[in-house]
Amino acid sequence: MKKKYLVAGGDLRFARLAEYLAEKGCFVYTLGFDSGIVPSGKIHTLKNLMSLNERVDHLILPLPVSNDGVNVNMPYSGSTLPVELLCAALKENGTAFGGRFTDNIKEMFAARNIETIDYSAREEFAVLNAEATAEGALQVAMEETASTISGQKILIIGMGRIAKMLVHILGGFNADVTVAARKCSDLAWAEVYGCKNIRICDLSQHLGEYSIIFNTAPAVILDGAKLRLLDKGCLVIDLASKPGGVDFDTAAELGIRAVWLLSLPGRVAPLTAGVNIGKTIFNILGERGEGDE
Amino acid sequence: MKKKYLVAGGDLRFARLAEYLAEKGCFVYTLGFDSGIVPSGKIHTLKNLMSLNERVDHLILPLPVSNDGVNVNMPYSGSTLPVELLCAALKENGTAFGGRFTDNIKEMFAARNIETIDYSAREEFAVLNAEATAEGALQVAMEETASTISGQKILIIGMGRIAKMLVHILGGFNADVTVAARKCSDLAWAEVYGCKNIRICDLSQHLGEYSIIFNTAPAVILDGAKLRLLDKGCLVIDLASKPGGVDFDTAAELGIRAVWLLSLPGRVAPLTAGVNIGKTIFNILGERGEGDE
Amino acid sequence: MKKKYLVAGGDLRFARLAEYLAEKGCFVYTLGFDSGIVPSGKIHTLKNLMSLNERVDHLILPLPVSNDGVNVNMPYSGSTLPVELLCAALKENGTAFGGRFTDNIKEMFAARNIETIDYSAREEFAVLNAEATAEGALQVAMEETASTISGQKILIIGMGRIAKMLVHILGGFNADVTVAARKCSDLAWAEVYGCKNIRICDLSQHLGEYSIIFNTAPAVILDGAKLRLLDKGCLVIDLASKPGGVDFDTAAELGIRAVWLLSLPGRVAPLTAGVNIGKTIFNILGERGEGDE
Amino acid sequence: MKKKYLVAGGDLRFARLAEYLAEKGCFVYTLGFDSGIVPSGKIHTLKNLMSLNERVDHLILPLPVSNDGVNVNMPYSGSTLPVELLCAALKENGTAFGGRFTDNIKEMFAARNIETIDYSAREEFAVLNAEATAEGALQVAMEETASTISGQKILIIGMGRIAKMLVHILGGFNADVTVAARKCSDLAWAEVYGCKNIRICDLSQHLGEYSIIFNTAPAVILDGAKLRLLDKGCLVIDLASKPGGVDFDTAAELGIRAVWLLSLPGRVAPLTAGVNIGKTIFNILGERGEGDE
Repeated sequence: MKKKYLVAGGDLRFARLAEYLAEKGCFVYTLGFDSGIVPSGKIHTLKNLMSLNERVDHLILPLPVSNDGVNVNMPYSGSTLPVELLCAALKENGTAFGGRFTDNIKEMFAARNIETIDYSAREEFAVLNAEATAEGALQVAMEETASTISGQKILIIGMGRIAKMLVHILGGFNADVTVAARKCSDLAWAEVYGCKNIRICDLSQHLGEYSIIFNTAPAVILDGAKLRLLDKGCLVIDLASKPGGVDFDTAAELGIRAVWLLSLPGRVAPLTAGVNIGKTIFNILGERGEGDE
Repeated sequence: MKKKYLVAGGDLRFARLAEYLAEKGCFVYTLGFDSGIVPSGKIHTLKNLMSLNERVDHLILPLPVSNDGVNVNMPYSGSTLPVELLCAALKENGTAFGGRFTDNIKEMFAARNIETIDYSAREEFAVLNAEATAEGALQVAMEETASTISGQKILIIGMGRIAKMLVHILGGFNADVTVAARKCSDLAWAEVYGCKNIRICDLSQHLGEYSIIFNTAPAVILDGAKLRLLDKGCLVIDLASKPGGVDFDTAAELGIRAVWLLSLPGRVAPLTAGVNIGKTIFNILGERGEGDE
Repeated sequence: MKKKYLVAGGDLRFARLAEYLAEKGCFVYTLGFDSGIVPSGKIHTLKNLMSLNERVDHLILPLPVSNDGVNVNMPYSGSTLPVELLCAALKENGTAFGGRFTDNIKEMFAARNIETIDYSAREEFAVLNAEATAEGALQVAMEETASTISGQKILIIGMGRIAKMLVHILGGFNADVTVAARKCSDLAWAEVYGCKNIRICDLSQHLGEYSIIFNTAPAVILDGAKLRLLDKGCLVIDLASKPGGVDFDTAAELGIRAVWLLSLPGRVAPLTAGVNIGKTIFNILGERGEGDE
Repeated sequence: MKKKYLVAGGDLRFARLAEYLAEKGCFVYTLGFDSGIVPSGKIHTLKNLMSLNERVDHLILPLPVSNDGVNVNMPYSGSTLPVELLCAALKENGTAFGGRFTDNIKEMFAARNIETIDYSAREEFAVLNAEATAEGALQVAMEETASTISGQKILIIGMGRIAKMLVHILGGFNADVTVAARKCSDLAWAEVYGCKNIRICDLSQHLGEYSIIFNTAPAVILDGAKLRLLDKGCLVIDLASKPGGVDFDTAAELGIRAVWLLSLPGRVAPLTAGVNIGKTIFNILGERGEGDE
């Protein structure tokens, strides 16, 4: 028998996720979206929790699950809904998927013998989202400059997932890309992927050459001293999660444009980001032998 | 002795062009820019034509040279300047470069034995600008969609310079690109560049599959009948010069987003577009044996 | 009713062509191949012309049609067959396809009111074969060097079809590619495709830098004087048709490895080359409204 | 003062390594190469160990260090040299670099207080060599097929370093690439790098579609049962280290071409492979603060 899903709360990513699950043949309820947000058709949109007449196999909570530690994160709904109330919507042995559960919400589920699974902690989710992040960063770079990307001297700090995707996408442009990293193996990846490469510790002597810098390293590499070495027209795009990798105050003081872009997939490509969550959930279910497919 | 240039009028492209010429060692006057537009430093900014105390070798007029057939196209100046007055600024045997001279202006120069050269008619100018156009089109596609470019089914109509650049840049994205063209050789180029390809005459049966369509063909391929075959969520970007390649009225009626993007290089990448004009002028001078370099 | 084809003579390309036509639903006879060359199955292999009991719609002759101006070019057969005898195999209004007809053979067909069509003169055939040529050239470069292609400084002379394909394929490698050309528009293409570019007339001052040179220009650019400027370890691959673009005698004298690669598609990728002929013939028939498809 | 190196034994990679070290300003002795193998010039070629009149800082041994557990691996020398004798060539606190030390040789050095460092165990060495391996595999694929790589349906099994490099290089070709892997994150990488992807467990149903298969996974994925599902014309290239990933006996029985390519960097690109060892050694010294640079 077809598994039933309840997508409760979240932004456009979760409206798209609900649609994606339905496209793949799942039976899907949604809750916590004002009318018009979730595509009608195959999805069963609930006005409120009361309207749910059965228990579902899988509850899907947003990313993050909750902003206040109590209620579901529901930006597309005027009402509020404590996460706790959703427990009753799950079958015994049901699972609660969510992104970044707080400890107390996790414990609340555990106390009711409900397993919680954080899809946002999965490696493939990070890989798929890295592509959306890289595209979003490039879009901002295009918008913020009066030149083409082609022909620019671009520095990418770090060589993790997002940096690798930036390198890949920039391969279609005619840009001069340098990767700065600490680890020798990261510099080797930069080399075999056709980039110039430089050790972080040697960065200062070259910083004045770049017109666009993407930081992906979760450390303040571009501190005040380094920012002073930049060309005044340089655009700095920080993709590092908090606390970020750029001293924004000094940048502002120096008149250097520096933008900090967080949560890009949800902002520039919510539809793709929603599908990425769906693919990740199917992977998890597949590994547990619970895949419908 | 160093050749002297007068850049008279034009938008940001021409401010950058003046700077580029100066960077390459030319002696450059500018006229027709309000203060602050042209980077100070090596450029000799003139308040008005009276301030010019010598005759120059090369006059550089904007693209288009004039909007009204009489005055220089000077969007960054509050004053007006008849093109005719500039004749006196040129040395005997000097040349007037410009983009799309009107016949009467051309004749006016000819009557004074001044050679006019249209840089915008040069093939390399079109090739260099095709890159800026393709980048700009992609930027708009990113802005107008809530998905990543990667993963989209994209149709490119035509396989000229702009289409080839789109194909090249999209190579860095993970998109499924189809080229539609009339000529067998264009379809062969699409094939060897890794795209699917389809004859224009067979287009109708596949039109519903695409989520983004770039038209580069200067003919109304996407007429009302074809637009009706599109998916309602499809984004149509028309890059064809006037009269365009899309029936925009029908598109609006059908609720299909269709945008017509003209003169993209000057709009999204004026600095690059200015350099492209500079490179083209140097090429022309080089072929005539007048290059300073 | 299905059109009937007779593929008469040719090398492995034509055995594959016969198979391709059959795969596409054509009725195909072959003649002039020893047993075992043409894949059995859907193809009707003739021992000799006598065995043909009907007239066909399309005669397909090899590339070149004939080596001696009289007999069919049949490297995979021990016997000989005058082209003239094949006229009787064609229906009235039938067409004779071939690659590089000699004038006398063309006239012979014309005298019998048989139209001749040279598939090898079609632009799309040249484009499709340029890919096979570029791959073959790269294969030889890999075989002839004890280094990876990645990391090499590579010069491509010319920016025609083959050069463009080389640039495209080398995009997957981490090589430092320079294009040398005469035309400004060709140099612009090199630039937008991410290559360094240099005018032929400035070539001498840089020639010593390259480790691999591909010549695609049909003129002796690499004459004795230029060869003397090369690094002794440089590999020169000439892809120009006769008379070639390299002074091979001087190269030999200087101890510089220089290889002249002609007719690469048929040599390194006969199966692909055969399909390319088939696609071209279908294009021709399609344009004439005679396509079976 | 400049550090001194002794490169003792090894194949062409080590002759090139000696040259690379000298190019970078090191003082280099070589031992164990017949005359003519090591480029003359800046390198100090020793006839035998007796000719060494001083002790060096760094001893560089080949990959593998020894084939018999006693003598240096010296394919380019007619004589033999026990590794043990080289201890006397090192200064106190000197280091012995080598590739895959046997335990007894390691202990022998340890007993003399000489540190041994295995450059072949470094991650960046594996990354750099993955590029050479991927190029070599592609070269063999080109040689073994009568079609272009473009247009082929290619399967890559595994998504480690070598597979990623294959995907990258194939990006320049117009091939249809599928990656098969077990881990969801590897499949996600395949997706964002523009490949189709399939779980190893679902492989059987698609195996008949591919014309070239590269195996990079160190497990016998292509066992007899799977080989039976392949198209008879499929080419299988196994890049897995021993025991390999293909049942070669069954392949031979079935008439399927399967080649097992080991140690490709040293075979197809010894010069690049030698430089890769040099870069790795410099990285190691740099991390230890012993870099000359």
